[in-house]
Amino acid sequence: MITCFGETMLRLSPPGAYRIAQAQSFDIVFGGAESNVGAALANFGEDVRWVSKMPENEIADACLRWMRSFGMDVSKVVRGGSRMGVFYLEKGASLRPSKVIYDRKGSAISEAQPGDFDWDAILEGTDAFFFTGITPAIGETLPGIVEDALTVCRAKKIPVFCDINYRPTLWTPDIAGAAMRKLIRGLCTLVANEEHADLLLGVKSDKTGDDKLYDIARKLCETYEIGRVVLTLRQSHSSDDNTVSAVMYDSVTGEFVKSKEYRVHIVDRVGGGDALSAGLIYCTRLGRSLQDTIEFASAANALKHSVHGDVLMASAEEVQRLASSSDGTVRMIR
Amino acid sequence: MITCFGETMLRLSPPGAYRIAQAQSFDIVFGGAESNVGAALANFGEDVRWVSKMPENEIADACLRWMRSFGMDVSKVVRGGSRMGVFYLEKGASLRPSKVIYDRKGSAISEAQPGDFDWDAILEGTDAFFFTGITPAIGETLPGIVEDALTVCRAKKIPVFCDINYRPTLWTPDIAGAAMRKLIRGLCTLVANEEHADLLLGVKSDKTGDDKLYDIARKLCETYEIGRVVLTLRQSHSSDDNTVSAVMYDSVTGEFVKSKEYRVHIVDRVGGGDALSAGLIYCTRLGRSLQDTIEFASAANALKHSVHGDVLMASAEEVQRLASSSDGTVRMIR
Amino acid sequence: MITCFGETMLRLSPPGAYRIAQAQSFDIVFGGAESNVGAALANFGEDVRWVSKMPENEIADACLRWMRSFGMDVSKVVRGGSRMGVFYLEKGASLRPSKVIYDRKGSAISEAQPGDFDWDAILEGTDAFFFTGITPAIGETLPGIVEDALTVCRAKKIPVFCDINYRPTLWTPDIAGAAMRKLIRGLCTLVANEEHADLLLGVKSDKTGDDKLYDIARKLCETYEIGRVVLTLRQSHSSDDNTVSAVMYDSVTGEFVKSKEYRVHIVDRVGGGDALSAGLIYCTRLGRSLQDTIEFASAANALKHSVHGDVLMASAEEVQRLASSSDGTVRMIR
Amino acid sequence: MITCFGETMLRLSPPGAYRIAQAQSFDIVFGGAESNVGAALANFGEDVRWVSKMPENEIADACLRWMRSFGMDVSKVVRGGSRMGVFYLEKGASLRPSKVIYDRKGSAISEAQPGDFDWDAILEGTDAFFFTGITPAIGETLPGIVEDALTVCRAKKIPVFCDINYRPTLWTPDIAGAAMRKLIRGLCTLVANEEHADLLLGVKSDKTGDDKLYDIARKLCETYEIGRVVLTLRQSHSSDDNTVSAVMYDSVTGEFVKSKEYRVHIVDRVGGGDALSAGLIYCTRLGRSLQDTIEFASAANALKHSVHGDVLMASAEEVQRLASSSDGTVRMIR
Amino acid sequence: MITCFGETMLRLSPPGAYRIAQAQSFDIVFGGAESNVGAALANFGEDVRWVSKMPENEIADACLRWMRSFGMDVSKVVRGGSRMGVFYLEKGASLRPSKVIYDRKGSAISEAQPGDFDWDAILEGTDAFFFTGITPAIGETLPGIVEDALTVCRAKKIPVFCDINYRPTLWTPDIAGAAMRKLIRGLCTLVANEEHADLLLGVKSDKTGDDKLYDIARKLCETYEIGRVVLTLRQSHSSDDNTVSAVMYDSVTGEFVKSKEYRVHIVDRVGGGDALSAGLIYCTRLGRSLQDTIEFASAANALKHSVHGDVLMASAEEVQRLASSSDGTVRMIR
Amino acid sequence: MITCFGETMLRLSPPGAYRIAQAQSFDIVFGGAESNVGAALANFGEDVRWVSKMPENEIADACLRWMRSFGMDVSKVVRGGSRMGVFYLEKGASLRPSKVIYDRKGSAISEAQPGDFDWDAILEGTDAFFFTGITPAIGETLPGIVEDALTVCRAKKIPVFCDINYRPTLWTPDIAGAAMRKLIRGLCTLVANEEHADLLLGVKSDKTGDDKLYDIARKLCETYEIGRVVLTLRQSHSSDDNTVSAVMYDSVTGEFVKSKEYRVHIVDRVGGGDALSAGLIYCTRLGRSLQDTIEFASAANALKHSVHGDVLMASAEEVQRLASSSDGTVRMIR
Repeated sequence: MITCFGETMLRLSPPGAYRIAQAQSFDIVFGGAESNVGAALANFGEDVRWVSKMPENEIADACLRWMRSFGMDVSKVVRGGSRMGVFYLEKGASLRPSKVIYDRKGSAISEAQPGDFDWDAILEGTDAFFFTGITPAIGETLPGIVEDALTVCRAKKIPVFCDINYRPTLWTPDIAGAAMRKLIRGLCTLVANEEHADLLLGVKSDKTGDDKLYDIARKLCETYEIGRVVLTLRQSHSSDDNTVSAVMYDSVTGEFVKSKEYRVHIVDRVGGGDALSAGLIYCTRLGRSLQDTIEFASAANALKHSVHGDVLMASAEEVQRLASSSDGTVRMIR
Repeated sequence: MITCFGETMLRLSPPGAYRIAQAQSFDIVFGGAESNVGAALANFGEDVRWVSKMPENEIADACLRWMRSFGMDVSKVVRGGSRMGVFYLEKGASLRPSKVIYDRKGSAISEAQPGDFDWDAILEGTDAFFFTGITPAIGETLPGIVEDALTVCRAKKIPVFCDINYRPTLWTPDIAGAAMRKLIRGLCTLVANEEHADLLLGVKSDKTGDDKLYDIARKLCETYEIGRVVLTLRQSHSSDDNTVSAVMYDSVTGEFVKSKEYRVHIVDRVGGGDALSAGLIYCTRLGRSLQDTIEFASAANALKHSVHGDVLMASAEEVQRLASSSDGTVRMIR
Repeated sequence: MITCFGETMLRLSPPGAYRIAQAQSFDIVFGGAESNVGAALANFGEDVRWVSKMPENEIADACLRWMRSFGMDVSKVVRGGSRMGVFYLEKGASLRPSKVIYDRKGSAISEAQPGDFDWDAILEGTDAFFFTGITPAIGETLPGIVEDALTVCRAKKIPVFCDINYRPTLWTPDIAGAAMRKLIRGLCTLVANEEHADLLLGVKSDKTGDDKLYDIARKLCETYEIGRVVLTLRQSHSSDDNTVSAVMYDSVTGEFVKSKEYRVHIVDRVGGGDALSAGLIYCTRLGRSLQDTIEFASAANALKHSVHGDVLMASAEEVQRLASSSDGTVRMIR
Repeated sequence: MITCFGETMLRLSPPGAYRIAQAQSFDIVFGGAESNVGAALANFGEDVRWVSKMPENEIADACLRWMRSFGMDVSKVVRGGSRMGVFYLEKGASLRPSKVIYDRKGSAISEAQPGDFDWDAILEGTDAFFFTGITPAIGETLPGIVEDALTVCRAKKIPVFCDINYRPTLWTPDIAGAAMRKLIRGLCTLVANEEHADLLLGVKSDKTGDDKLYDIARKLCETYEIGRVVLTLRQSHSSDDNTVSAVMYDSVTGEFVKSKEYRVHIVDRVGGGDALSAGLIYCTRLGRSLQDTIEFASAANALKHSVHGDVLMASAEEVQRLASSSDGTVRMIR
Repeated sequence: MITCFGETMLRLSPPGAYRIAQAQSFDIVFGGAESNVGAALANFGEDVRWVSKMPENEIADACLRWMRSFGMDVSKVVRGGSRMGVFYLEKGASLRPSKVIYDRKGSAISEAQPGDFDWDAILEGTDAFFFTGITPAIGETLPGIVEDALTVCRAKKIPVFCDINYRPTLWTPDIAGAAMRKLIRGLCTLVANEEHADLLLGVKSDKTGDDKLYDIARKLCETYEIGRVVLTLRQSHSSDDNTVSAVMYDSVTGEFVKSKEYRVHIVDRVGGGDALSAGLIYCTRLGRSLQDTIEFASAANALKHSVHGDVLMASAEEVQRLASSSDGTVRMIR
Repeated sequence: MITCFGETMLRLSPPGAYRIAQAQSFDIVFGGAESNVGAALANFGEDVRWVSKMPENEIADACLRWMRSFGMDVSKVVRGGSRMGVFYLEKGASLRPSKVIYDRKGSAISEAQPGDFDWDAILEGTDAFFFTGITPAIGETLPGIVEDALTVCRAKKIPVFCDINYRPTLWTPDIAGAAMRKLIRGLCTLVANEEHADLLLGVKSDKTGDDKLYDIARKLCETYEIGRVVLTLRQSHSSDDNTVSAVMYDSVTGEFVKSKEYRVHIVDRVGGGDALSAGLIYCTRLGRSLQDTIEFASAANALKHSVHGDVLMASAEEVQRLASSSDGTVRMIR
């Protein structure tokens, strides 16, 4: 059982390439970094539990219905509070950037209290725990609640995975850095990027190219006693076309690997990093090699860009097929 | 110029008769009692100003675009605050009732401050002012802000129209009653119904039928020094079929009139009362007879039920055609 | 082969119950009285030829594609002229009437010339000819062109069916009356209603009820040497609900029959009369009894109201099932 | 745990009131009598297991995702066989009947083998079993497989509920009768109607009105040693309007009760009887009175007609609110 | 008259880039290699007859309506059998491949009997016959039925065109090879690719580049006494971008030509090869040069990728404009 | 106040990449070069008045509603005449070009009379006037009406901007040239391209590259006493991908500048040039440098291609962000 903890919001987006000002309807999905990771893992065939706090209304009911459709266990979701967070996604196109407008203030989970979560019960049977840097950012009580969860993880020797996922609209680098430095200590695997390593965690390097990435990953492991670090890379050629890849470092073996680069034509940009985290957890639990792990995780990231919504809708076989393809060409399957 | 003051929200509703749990998209319009009245009046050809407070984001921009499309002046809308209110409307069908879920807490207007509105400037050139009982209910500062507006109206001798529009999810009858009794004193015209007259304003009657309605209307006028009172009537046969009508009393002439009853098959139930208020204001300003006024207002109410969205999309001619029809039959126009 | 001659337009209508001012898209079909009759007859299994004049562009191509989908022969459609006519249909609901806005001026067929149509060739193999009063109304040359067609029909002894279909936006009662009185002389069957019989054809009756209808039908037959006359009846309870029926008189036998009355809940109001004409022609050609004929024709009319678009999408069996049902109840077929 | 066993198909239906010949897209849901009952029960808050056989493809995967969204356990669904059944639903309107076209031949479940289902394991923890007369009808091996399940139910003393649900396109009255007479012996509760009681089970009555229904229900209980019998009643005024109700007889107490009659305006006609069965099982398990049971079950049936798809999307509270309403009027909830 | 013989299925595809698991509706078209070729030829202005066997239900009726819309003659389509085949198309995007799931087992045409088709009557007036390797693959009787058709073609000296179109899900290379080697003997023109020439027809070459293609085409002509052979080439850069071209060899003149290469951005990938075959037949019948023929056919293939559905919706002029363009640039036409 | 004068039409386009022959609905917007420019300027925050003549019907009402939504003043639009022009836009894809079919003959504005427009009143408060070469082309009276407007502009010293916008379907180069040469004399700024400078205005150059463009712009200024000339450049790689840029010459300073080149992936091709004109007018009025002006205008043009409809839906800040970006990369904003 993999347990994911965080906020999930109703996502409202104009159809196709419409701007918000032009929309007469919004397409809806539910999205949140931790449930995105959980749903992708469930699609890979894993047992997943998603934990959060949600209000008692039909919107939250619809969200739980959505979570269950992946096969995720939602029996530990706490009900209460006043509202679900909402975010508006206006998909970009060509030279027009995508925009996200958050309306998450006052959401049930952001006002959760430590007593809401009985982590001993919640983590019963769990053998991997996942959260992102968004969870402690959404409310004042949240860093403490995450800390509670991590304390139980330590006691139960549950490996913890975390994506640093810094959101400047939620907190400042100073506050975020102070909180995250505490929470990431002793992680099994941390996902970050060069910018956030510097900004929040105070780790940078004067080198260039792969040496620089190696340097940053190694220092992060050393400084925060982390088992493995993944650094993600993205180039945005336009709103329609990006190139993504990742590197990974293992502090035990000292191994450093790079994934293939994928040029992706974008159907939906949101959730790429979450798909990567899901791939990472999936391969880690299977004990696959570092190279295989980063290839699978990067392929999951790349593939996510071709799928509508926040969640990677793909089987582990589909991800592996892309990860294993020598030339990336894609032929119709029939 | 007619000035309307209140909150407008983004309305999200599943298409057709879908339940929220079944929706993959939400149809969107913008709705709020006061802007619904303003938009209907603008559709009738009146000059209308809508006043509110809205955040600085693309959702609010889209709302202003919507307001301008009717020809309403939005130059006095204050920008600021953190979010726009949202409401979810699940349209009922047959024996399944419609449901509204509000998510308006923390909206910009609900946290407005008295200093946000310069009523002297806002009401410059205004010759009718409209608000509903929702406006003072949405935030602690709002009763005072409405009172400020009414003070300027009194000074400028601007006639004021108000729909009592009691919403039990926003405040209790006690608090609402205390606030509204103060605000409705001296109104030009008040719109209410039997239930709210009793619950909030302490006015009821032991009589039956029309006598009862006459009694209540008369007492409301006397107790609160109101010029005219309209009482609305609605029977809900099913979520698809209602019967609507209204009565009206003039405290100066003592005249009491009833409108025709309209059996309506419902396209969209929301905003019927707002259409009635718009019709009322429209005819009052034209100096039409009490009977003509209540017929026009009731026809506007009835016609609204055939139109998607919160706003009565109809010309004054279309409303009058229905109000004047002897038998209510409807033939294709070509 | 049944040949139908007239104009067909692109029909643009807002989805569902939306008003034109609210639409972001228009549903499209093609519609015209004569092609509606032809398409319904083709759906019944008849060989049908549709004749008109259409411009050389993709809109007209799409229209011909549509005509062919029913199996109609369009090989005699003349290409040329500058545009296709368009009409906007705003479907009514409840107490809001449906509206049609025509934009047909300057259409190819309205500017057709007598030389465009070689009626000897067009009517080769034809054993029934259908037109409506709209065709001579759409352009100055059209009465003459219809007259040309009727001359050939007379020579070839092709029975002619006509629906008077008076449209006050196209011509005045005086001009229409003068033209139609000439064109309907010697018809096999005329479809009209009480109002148009008086207004255009100068036939009315002082009697009441069925006697009145009998009187009018008989006089029409006598005055204009017509074989049979059908008078249609419609009550509009609301935009959603109508009651339809028809009577029929045979001048040879003197027989006068009435159809059942159908209370219809309306999906699409347009084309009901055209479905009736199609039913009439279908049964006449099969030599069915007068009673069976008017029942089938009225059932076709009633059934049309349950189908989207201008055309009755139903087989002859489906129409007959309704015509034969004793109680009009409708059970799911599975 | 309530276990339901049967076939579920992909349902394809033209949007709105479109005929199949007019559709450019089909709305999709998944539907089957037993999963409809299971999903409604899950919506009421029950633990439900759905058992069937489904092929290994993306359509079946989507169906399982759908089942899980209600919270149903699908871990005992057998994968294998060549295809999923499909049915096309053309919704009727007004005087045009709804049509269902089945394409279920060769479906995985219809070709299932007795060895596919380990009933001891499947029924572990089950305390109610539901099937309909469709399940034994869909394939030659199915009566035996159902018999196997019932044998285990008897051994485990699991009460069994069955809806006779006779489908003439699947088998003849003779074959169906022979099979069903065997399978219904000893049922906890049987749902049937007057017509099928006679046609399949050889039970009828010469009486009239309620006496007749009482007579039939009593005889069914006696002849087949059944605990309780429900007889459903439906009048089809048109494709848009039906009246539904039901009666129920308890063989132990001899009590006979009738539900209220509901006039329903139809959004989606399919699955009404399945909602009734779900209501029946729900109240039976709660030990509610016979009158309360039939009222709840009939309200569930009535409410289903207002919901798109095969499944009653409603909470037990919503059903009870309708069952308890004295006058059936419906007011907006806000 | 060009006669095409084969199966056409209902194609169900999620809108846009949705995965099957995400769809709430399926877009529908009808598609089959032979009807795709026929429809494209009809769009070019040719007389086309499509021959198949289809069940007596509304889905098949809708398919025939579709066929007639192109102007194709369907009078020789045999009605009977139990079902129409269905296929699900999930369009790929970027690095996610498109997927086709067939559900065609038990279709009417796959269970057709030799006596169903009177080839002498069907081929009356035909001057070109087209089939693909799918037709003999779909059922045991089909190779014999195709052979019957070819026998009549030989007797009537009707030139035959065939696309080898090998589908590994329908038959093995061994069985397919044995069948096809017999059926392609004496063809006017065969369309194949390098892979299938080797796998089914035992023809390959040790050369490289164009020499290899020349070699294969020449050997195919010699071995199977075929007039002309076209070999198609496709590179799949991603699900969105392919490069297509073709070569053609004439066994009489020994001429070997290559088409331009087209880089296509894909709207709909299905039916490209069918558009090529249509272009081939069209130019062959016009007696155009080998170079002109392969350019037109390749342009038809390329253009198909920009059109939704299985069928090339384009006039011969539109195809020729692309074939003739020197630089492939595309400017708006207005 | 910026005043724009010209025709706006209802634009009907098949959804997505559908061809007209495949559409069951048309997406609708309103578009016309001058209102496109006005709406973009209003989106930038400018006060804009749009002037035209429109019929008294619901389609024109909807158009005015649309205009008002941008905040444009429509109080000077003349009502009358018989119809609104319509154009059909079939969006191209890949190697299939976009197509526009105009149906604007007989539109209200094309039949306007000089007396319809009181230019003194209309241009009261105006400090910039914009028209395109389409306006004088649409009707015989239009060149005179434009001349009337320009006379008042000259008197009031209102700077005039014009886009030559030659449309060969509306007039011949000879007639267009004669008219435009007169109208462009003394312009503040003219937008043209190389081809139209030669064809209509008799200005070309033997040089190559930038020298050629410089030469043409300079000669245009000199010949027609124009202040500044912009020449636009476009390469059409496919219907999905274009490269756009522009050059600008100032006759007072002799300065000649070039904008960046933008490779755009196209959402909607229409209105790019209009966005450029809006950008031009916007920067000119702000007195920005020639380089800044052409960069902003070109960025507006480029950005328009990413927005659905004819109008650039973007703020001045969004345009400037693109104009200022060093590398054109685009990152999600959140």
